[in-house]
Amino acid sequence: MRKRSERRSYSTIVVRHACIAAAAATLSASVIASAAQAEDVCVVKSTDLDFAALEPLQNAANAKPGSRVVPARIIPLPTTTSPKFQAMVAAPYRVPAWDANPKSAAEWKELIAKLAAAGAAVQPALREKLGVTMEPTTIAGVKAFILTPKVIPPANQNRLLYHIHGGGYVYAPGESGTAEATLMAGIGGFKVISVDYRMPPDFPYPAAMDDAMAVWKEVIKLQNPRNIAVFGTSTGGGMTLALVLRAKQEGLPLPAAIAPGTPWSDLTEAGDSYKTNEWVDNVLVSYSGYISHSALLYANGHDLKDPQLSPIYGDFHGFPPAILTSGTRDLFLSLTVLTHRKLRQAGVEAQLQVYEGMSHAQYLFDADSPETKEAFTEIARFFDQHLGK
Amino acid sequence: MRKRSERRSYSTIVVRHACIAAAAATLSASVIASAAQAEDVCVVKSTDLDFAALEPLQNAANAKPGSRVVPARIIPLPTTTSPKFQAMVAAPYRVPAWDANPKSAAEWKELIAKLAAAGAAVQPALREKLGVTMEPTTIAGVKAFILTPKVIPPANQNRLLYHIHGGGYVYAPGESGTAEATLMAGIGGFKVISVDYRMPPDFPYPAAMDDAMAVWKEVIKLQNPRNIAVFGTSTGGGMTLALVLRAKQEGLPLPAAIAPGTPWSDLTEAGDSYKTNEWVDNVLVSYSGYISHSALLYANGHDLKDPQLSPIYGDFHGFPPAILTSGTRDLFLSLTVLTHRKLRQAGVEAQLQVYEGMSHAQYLFDADSPETKEAFTEIARFFDQHLGK
Repeated sequence: MRKRSERRSYSTIVVRHACIAAAAATLSASVIASAAQAEDVCVVKSTDLDFAALEPLQNAANAKPGSRVVPARIIPLPTTTSPKFQAMVAAPYRVPAWDANPKSAAEWKELIAKLAAAGAAVQPALREKLGVTMEPTTIAGVKAFILTPKVIPPANQNRLLYHIHGGGYVYAPGESGTAEATLMAGIGGFKVISVDYRMPPDFPYPAAMDDAMAVWKEVIKLQNPRNIAVFGTSTGGGMTLALVLRAKQEGLPLPAAIAPGTPWSDLTEAGDSYKTNEWVDNVLVSYSGYISHSALLYANGHDLKDPQLSPIYGDFHGFPPAILTSGTRDLFLSLTVLTHRKLRQAGVEAQLQVYEGMSHAQYLFDADSPETKEAFTEIARFFDQHLGK
Repeated sequence: MRKRSERRSYSTIVVRHACIAAAAATLSASVIASAAQAEDVCVVKSTDLDFAALEPLQNAANAKPGSRVVPARIIPLPTTTSPKFQAMVAAPYRVPAWDANPKSAAEWKELIAKLAAAGAAVQPALREKLGVTMEPTTIAGVKAFILTPKVIPPANQNRLLYHIHGGGYVYAPGESGTAEATLMAGIGGFKVISVDYRMPPDFPYPAAMDDAMAVWKEVIKLQNPRNIAVFGTSTGGGMTLALVLRAKQEGLPLPAAIAPGTPWSDLTEAGDSYKTNEWVDNVLVSYSGYISHSALLYANGHDLKDPQLSPIYGDFHGFPPAILTSGTRDLFLSLTVLTHRKLRQAGVEAQLQVYEGMSHAQYLFDADSPETKEAFTEIARFFDQHLGK
């Protein structure tokens, strides 16, 4: 008896939420659900629910300390981005990239190859637009690309940037991973070396970090480390942080500055924006999408909280100056601000830039967007302040 | 006939959203709505809807460019704040403060007085805790408070901070508006003058700014302006920006630094987080709450986009260095980052700090929260870097 009534009570709560939600979703519908609630059923008719109708429902649903009950919503396009960028805010979810859940190594490879082919296909035009040339190379046995802008300003002649691409530890192998390096080379006027590290399913952790470190050891022979910065977005941002941790541990020179963009600094689901921006971010959409699978594929049984996988759990003391980039709709907004705070707590000079309406890593998607130019110009300025000449 | 079918089609879309929402809200319920949809009715039974069930619904709802359709959700408490601060994330909506909509000046005054009495009542304990004394005063005919910490470090002996309180241009008159000044005085070790500017309903725009300017003109006689910073949160942040605009215009000395916290820099509804963080922020909750009413009450017929009301529309060139503070759940997150970007675009040194899980201005609410100490310590450090001694 007791158990049954407990169940019914839980059901009633759930259904009350469902009704609030359903009502809210219409944005203009009146709820005629009360009669049906006793049956665990919520009936909504689309007529006239506005703020005044939502207000008491929401107040009731959020009257006690605890989780936040949020109604379904139709979030309009912001008027506060550039028109170019607004088109990216409007873009549909990226299917199948965001929610891929391949059941075998073969399926992963097929998907990765398909997305990589599409990504690589647009690189020549991007390089052409930004006046950047690309040279494939091999450094310490690891594949890499050298991106060189047509004009390198005098201040950057003796400087070198090291780029680590993103893609959730599975996407963007080969040329498809070079877009960010091209943008930085072209907008910032820097020579960039981009590492094409090995990835799952064939090469789980620590292959990617081993490759990134092997190349780092060579990069610091090519140029004075005080004239070198390391940057990357998402997985590339997480690996940038992990590289500094490992370089500290191995007693290697550190870069003079880093730019972890919306870094995947925690492979577990910790971080409030994993929930607040779930279904809002139109790039990653949800932690339950591909990244929850690729995290496990990459970790290959290792503890996700190992600082080499989730650098947020590492010690940031002694880190070089850092500039971090995110957006208000970014699923990794929390990871970015948590990383920023942790750097500041460790006494590191760290700057944060957050862009209006921006989902995960969207500053990489359109070279013509003013927001893209702004984000890379800010990073370039930061590097200019902190790199030797 | 045509009209009727158009209506039905719109209805169907609306109901589809409602069903997605209802399903999502349960977080674990299966949708058995299909049969009912033809009747414009969505029936949801609370059994088993998980990510796998939501995924196709959400993909379908977000398959075309445009607004973002987001399901209802129950957002859990983040594990990534301090335990102290987590209690603030968990707090219920602040009823009636957030959604007040008084119908007359008398009703406004009653509400304001009631909230102010509650706010003032806790100030003595806050000052005691932080070792701060308060002295009411009058400067240029305007009421003000002088907050003095027990110990002023040698570096701050010749420095002075000027504080402008928040409260949507209606709340927090008198002592109830001094909490932020006390926190800054106590945590930062600065002498602070806090202006108790006139407010609606009796004194709409430009009374508040006239008072703030009148006191500013006296403050800069008390101390070298190069040793003075101005700070304030929400309305106080907007007024800080408007004060600098007006001081520029009137050829007055500018402060050496400013700290607009989650500034109400735009009284119109522009800003993506007005929508993305609606119902998520547990302090302001929604633009449709009291702030939409108080904005009009304050503006009193003036154009909301006048830079003296919405400083984001002003010219930020020549502004002093600025540090801005917000949170990932803040309804004003967009206003904060848009202000930050606009300052940077004008060549101003501007730093941004964003706190995990934080709703609007929540760094003011608990002196014992590590996040509060961190936010004010960062501002104090920033002032220390930019103020003369």
